Amino acid sequence: MDFQLNQAFVRSYTVSTDVYEAFQKCSADYNPLHTDEAFARERGFPGKVMYGNILNAFLSHFIGECLPMKNVIIHSQSIAFKNPVFLDEVLSFEAVVTGVFDAVQAIEFKFKFQKPDGKPAAKGVIQIGVMK
Amino acid sequence: MDFQLNQAFVRSYTVSTDVYEAFQKCSADYNPLHTDEAFARERGFPGKVMYGNILNAFLSHFIGECLPMKNVIIHSQSIAFKNPVFLDEVLSFEAVVTGVFDAVQAIEFKFKFQKPDGKPAAKGVIQIGVMK
Repeated sequence: MDFQLNQAFVRSYTVSTDVYEAFQKCSADYNPLHTDEAFARERGFPGKVMYGNILNAFLSHFIGECLPMKNVIIHSQSIAFKNPVFLDEVLSFEAVVTGVFDAVQAIEFKFKFQKPDGKPAAKGVIQIGVMK
Repeated sequence: MDFQLNQAFVRSYTVSTDVYEAFQKCSADYNPLHTDEAFARERGFPGKVMYGNILNAFLSHFIGECLPMKNVIIHSQSIAFKNPVFLDEVLSFEAVVTGVFDAVQAIEFKFKFQKPDGKPAAKGVIQIGVMK
């Protein structure tokens, strides 16, 4: 396959208003942490906390659009959220190939999202299959 | 906290055209597996495969909207995709409380999504925190 161990992919993702609103429409999640500025501030956040699963939507984009082939499908993924993300933040994204399983046409990446201040936003692992 | 071990939550989620299109806008993932009927059929699927991460958006809804309190935040989650999901399928969703960690105000659920034909769509684990 077209992957080598430790091969890295780097790009950025922005949690724009368009992205936020599209996720809200997709999920129908109107929890006040994500929609009510006052509710979020009362809990110590500087503003509405962005949905963590927006980062999983960015992962879909990375797998679907940023690899050297299109015939890929996600098998599994895990993510740990480290620090909250706020509207309009530009996140640095890095994914590194940590497994190449030729016999089953599968690839594993470790990934991380980093906030503009250098703090981690989230990190995790994603396994994909390369289809015929 | 308001949770008991083995407590179950059950509901359904539909991958409607609105949900599919909102996820596509959120992710900007136009991979042909999800957008090109012919591409999907050539790979043995009966139609466009829905984005797996739509199920993670449903998880956001479950945590944000379906629990007895609103002051919750996702700490981590993992999901394994077992069978592809297609447009307009109604998925049965079940989440069971598998951990109640009072000292750190955290709850763990195991969840599964089931297709209309009874096959598993996905399963995984999600940990949340209950905020003050």
